[in-house]
This record gives sequence, C-alpha cells and structure tokens, in this order.
Amino acid sequence: MTMAYPLAEIAKADNDKDKFLAVYPMLRDEMLEHMKENEMPDAAIEWCKTMMDYTVPGGKLNRGVTVVAVHRTLTKANEDRDLTDLEVAKAAVLGWAIEFLQAFFLVADDVMDASKTRRGQPCWYKLPHVKNIAINDSFLLESYVFTMIKKHFGKEEFYLQLLELFLQVIQQTEFGQLLDLTSQDEDAEEIDLTKFTLERYQKIVKYKTAFYTFYLPVAIGMITSRVTSDDAYDLAKDICCQMGEYFQIQDDYLDCYGDPSVIGKVGTDIQDNKCSWLVVQALDRVSDEQRKILEDNYGQWDDEKVKKVKELYAELDIEKIFKDYEEQSYKNIQEALDKVTLMPRDVFELLLKKIYKRSK
Amino acid sequence: MTMAYPLAEIAKADNDKDKFLAVYPMLRDEMLEHMKENEMPDAAIEWCKTMMDYTVPGGKLNRGVTVVAVHRTLTKANEDRDLTDLEVAKAAVLGWAIEFLQAFFLVADDVMDASKTRRGQPCWYKLPHVKNIAINDSFLLESYVFTMIKKHFGKEEFYLQLLELFLQVIQQTEFGQLLDLTSQDEDAEEIDLTKFTLERYQKIVKYKTAFYTFYLPVAIGMITSRVTSDDAYDLAKDICCQMGEYFQIQDDYLDCYGDPSVIGKVGTDIQDNKCSWLVVQALDRVSDEQRKILEDNYGQWDDEKVKKVKELYAELDIEKIFKDYEEQSYKNIQEALDKVTLMPRDVFELLLKKIYKRSK
Ligand SMILES: [Mg+2]
Ligand SMILES: [Mg+2]
Ligand SMILES: [Mg+2]
Ligand SMILES: [Mg+2]
Ligand SMILES: [Mg+2]
Ligand SMILES: [Mg+2]
Repeated sequence: MTMAYPLAEIAKADNDKDKFLAVYPMLRDEMLEHMKENEMPDAAIEWCKTMMDYTVPGGKLNRGVTVVAVHRTLTKANEDRDLTDLEVAKAAVLGWAIEFLQAFFLVADDVMDASKTRRGQPCWYKLPHVKNIAINDSFLLESYVFTMIKKHFGKEEFYLQLLELFLQVIQQTEFGQLLDLTSQDEDAEEIDLTKFTLERYQKIVKYKTAFYTFYLPVAIGMITSRVTSDDAYDLAKDICCQMGEYFQIQDDYLDCYGDPSVIGKVGTDIQDNKCSWLVVQALDRVSDEQRKILEDNYGQWDDEKVKKVKELYAELDIEKIFKDYEEQSYKNIQEALDKVTLMPRDVFELLLKKIYKRSK
Repeated sequence: MTMAYPLAEIAKADNDKDKFLAVYPMLRDEMLEHMKENEMPDAAIEWCKTMMDYTVPGGKLNRGVTVVAVHRTLTKANEDRDLTDLEVAKAAVLGWAIEFLQAFFLVADDVMDASKTRRGQPCWYKLPHVKNIAINDSFLLESYVFTMIKKHFGKEEFYLQLLELFLQVIQQTEFGQLLDLTSQDEDAEEIDLTKFTLERYQKIVKYKTAFYTFYLPVAIGMITSRVTSDDAYDLAKDICCQMGEYFQIQDDYLDCYGDPSVIGKVGTDIQDNKCSWLVVQALDRVSDEQRKILEDNYGQWDDEKVKKVKELYAELDIEKIFKDYEEQSYKNIQEALDKVTLMPRDVFELLLKKIYKRSK
C-alpha cells in the first residue's frame, strides 16, 4: 500500500487543528478502499463513508490534536527541532485513531443511554434508517483503528506496543462503562442512591474517561517519541488520571449548568439517574429531608422533578462547591507537575491549558 | 502471572469436548482476577462472572473444540505424536478465545435483531436487569479475547500473528453484519426483495459466518503448529469459505424447517425479513404472482403471513432444492479436498464430519 499523506495541506495550515483535519479525508478514503479490497459493494462503502463523516470528525478533536502536540513537545525537548510535515501527518494518523475510538464509544454510548442529540445533531442511531445498525457501526469504527495502525505503523518496531496500548485502553474504558451502567437500576421501584459515593465516582471517571482522553494521547506521543522508561509511563498515567477526574467533573457541571447551544447537547444526567459529581456532592451534604427530595425526584423524565433537583443543588450551593474544587484541583495538578523531572512538563501544561475553565 | 492449567482434568476427560470444557473455569476466573487488578469492585466482577457463564459456554462449542482438533491433526502429521495435556490446554485457551468472540457477536446480534431466545433461554439483553448494558457486555467479551491471548501467548514468537488474525476476522465478521443489516429496510412501506440475490447472499455468508466459524479455528491451529506458507493459509481460507457457505445454508434451512427444541431457538428469519438462502432460491423460481405473495407476506410479524410464505416454499419444493444443494456441495468440497497437498486433508475432514447433515 502506498501512502498519500496530504503534506502540502499540512504545510499550508497554520495551526495544529487544521493540519490535523487535513489528514481525515485520506484516512477515511483508505478505510473505504480497504472495504473495497474486502469485496464490499458500493452501497456498503457509501454507508460507511456517511457514517464516518457523521460520527468521527465533528467533535472538539482535542484528543487527536494532543497526539501531534505531545509528539512535537517531546521532539523539541529531545532533539531541539520542530516536526517535519511527514511527522505531523503520521502523528495525526494516531490522533485520528483516538478520534475513531471515541466515535466507537460515543455511538454505542448514545444507544445505551437512549440519548437524543450529540454535537448539536441527532445521535447517529436516531436517524430513521440507522437505528440498531449503529451498534455494528460502532464495532466498525473500532476495527478501523487497528486497520489504520497496521497500514501506517505495521513496520515500526513500536507497532506491537501501540496495538497493546489501544487494546488495553479500550478495555479500561469498557470497565468504566460497566461501572457507570451498573450504578443505576433503571427499573427499580425506588432509586438507590447508596452507590453514588465519591470513591465509586472517581473509579468510573478514571476508567471511563481519563485513560482514553488523557493517558492515551500522551502515551501515544511518548511511544512515537521512543520513550521507553516504565516510570515515565506510570508518571504520565498518574497525572493524566488527575486531569481526567477534573475534566469529567467539569463535564458533569456543564451537563447541568452549561449552555446547551455551546456544549452541543441538552444535559440529561439528572433524568438519566447518572452518578454525576453534582449528586455525589449533594448526597455528601444533605439533611434527611433533602435526601428524601433527591430520592423522590432524581432519575426521572419529568421536568418538574428535574427542577426540584436543581433547586436543591442551588440550596446546597453546588455551583460554589464546583468552583472551589476547580481552583483546588488546578493547584494540586500544578504541584504534581512541579515534581515532574522524567518528562518535559510542557506535555502536561498543554493539556491543562485546554481544559481549565472550559465552557464546552 | 502464573498459569494454572487444569492438566489433571484434561488427562481424565476422555473426549475433546470435555477436555475443552475443563479449561473454561480457569479462563473465566483469570478474566475476573484481571478485573480485580484493574480496581473493579466485587459487584462488577460478579456481574461479569454471571454474564460470561450465561453467554459463553452454552453453545455447541464446535469452533473452540476445532482448534484443539486441528492442532492435534497437524502435530500428528508433522511430528507423528499426540498432543501433551499442556498442549491441549493451550490450544483450548485459543479455542475459548473464539467462543468468547462468538459470544461477543451473538450478544450484540441479538440486540440488533431484537431476538427473544438464544440456546433455549432468553437472550442476555432480554433479562430485565441487563437490557442495553448487554451492548457494553459484548464489548467486554471481545476485550477478554485479547486479554487471554496476551496472558497465555504474549511471549510466543507468533503472538503478533495471532493478534492480527483475530483483529482481521473480527472486522470481516463486522463487514458481513453490515451487509446483512443493510439488506433490509425495516421501515420501508414496501419490502424490497431486489437485494436478495445469490451473489449478495454468498458475500454475507462468507464475511458474517465463514471467516470466524471455519477459517479462524483452522488458521489458529496452523499458527500454533508453526505453518508459515502463505499458500497454505490461502488454501485453508478457500476451503473454509466453501464449508462456511454450506454451513450457513443449513442454518437458514434449519431456521425454517428445524425443530426448535433441537436447535434451541424459534426461527424468525421470515419475520425478520432476512436475506435467507430459502428466499433467495424462492425468488429465483417464482412466477409474477408468486413473487407478489412474497412481497406481501415476507418480513412481517404476523403468523398468517409467515404461514403463506411457508406455503409458497412448499409449492416451490424448497426443501428438495436444499437437499439437492446439500449433496452437490458435499461433492464439491470433497473434490476440492482431493486437490489438497499442502496440508493434511484430515484437518478439513474433521470439520466436514461435524456439519454434514446436522440437525442443530
Ligand atoms: Mg451517554
Ligand atoms: Mg453512558
Ligand atoms: Mg456528561
Ligand atoms: Mg440474529
Ligand atoms: Mg443479525
Ligand atoms: Mg440463522
């Protein structure tokens, strides 16, 4: 297979996001070509083209762009030079592998959560001609991850390391989903808030979000920069998990207090009976009567009941609790970074800059 | 990690299926132990124990047992000796990897097809406490495949070859599912039978069934027996795809004409508007009026309409067409086997013996 990296477009683009975006059509078309090689008829190929375009490139792309940024930071630190356009292209392929992985998770998650919208448009499974086919589409998105890694990195000495990293992070994310999904019993007569503890919350977040959102892009950049020290990977994992917790807590905050037109979806964590940081904090502070309000109103698709939960949050000043947490968490991460000597601190600073006080 | 293969049980068992079954508890418990190492709480581990026991070992286990049989046949041919109990145990691990893969496919397929029963019991997703969580459970079953391969074969020189084989076959199966799922438009006002051609049928079967059911166990046995010739793998693929077509045509036949108490499920291909071999053959033979009967009655959950389709099948003597096909296909495969020189013919004979004229 010959590679056709869009080097001219990458050279022309003046920021990483645009350089990154320039690589998407090549990868998508390679996946379609790969299907043709596997005897797939035109209609199936067209289906997957539409499916990829609908589900993959429309997000914030932070995870994918981060791979390029980490690789650049480490190359600068190790070799005191900038990346070539080819190096940007190859890092972007791995960035897109994360974005495809994320699309896999989100397409399936929306089915499992019966969500309605994603990124300001109907969820893929909500389209009338798609429905349950979305489940197999999510599998295909996952499978493409390995197709692109093999095609672009199958001859590298770190190929197996990449494969195993992706396989491990996929499983960890699925462990997190399991914890999340079994924190709620949708059919119980009465909701059970006893599972909504801070300990469980932290575990869900670490597995469901932090590994693939923070550790994966950093670890990929480290692998492609030939970092071999196990300690360096462990350190990266530790800091990335701290950031992931902070990031998910923001996500939970934005689900309730964010602007739907900015975040691209209408939050439904309360209706969905989610083990959100907000309800965990509330449960930590409620009187017996207030706890009863939560038990009677949380986890139901009833606007009046959602309103009562939000009123209780206001009473308990959960917004203030979040702001305080945000300040404290930022300080803690900065302190952890102060101790980083095995790797350039910039790797983590660039992540932190993207998420601190975000509104979407 | 230390291995605890149940060698005494394997030695004691007097047939491959029992030897194979003896390995399951070890593997399941290793997956649970692996979850514990990943900080999963007891309830999540208990969930997965129940889930695995419900979805993995209850099938015919032909695919898994075949890995042991192929490995034995090739070892006999190459080294003129029987397998040791340890070799049986290690081949059984890879056999179970296929069974876990199959469970992944079936758990998800039942959700996508809205099926009711599987192996004589309610589908996993039909259990009231499971529902959509089954989708993530299917992901976990897939992820365990790679966990067990790494744990038991991570140090072998053929480890990467195994990983890539599984990844490729998973994707090919998903391609087949895509073709199958997009052969029907559930919401169309009128059903469209024009997609039910023999060519499309053969492609669906090859991808959706033949690769993982026939090629995968044979290829695994070849890898663990250190077969390296690309031609040998291509030949195996070719013969396995022929057998896979025959096997799926039987499956379609049994869906309509098999005994539900023997096959463990009530066939619903007609209601499900499936691109079954039976309807493909019927379409090839119908008059205009008979075609109208299919258009008006196929693909609907209405017992009267299902009956009309079955009456048409009887008129067209589809059962006889199947019996003739069965004879002819068996002859064709025998002729293909007559040309096999690169590998012991017994490898394929043992597969054929298991499926020819099966009733379940
Ligand atoms: Mg969701
Ligand atoms: Mg979810
Ligand atoms: Mg959220
Ligand atoms: Mg099915
Ligand atoms: Mg199906
Ligand atoms: Mg069938």
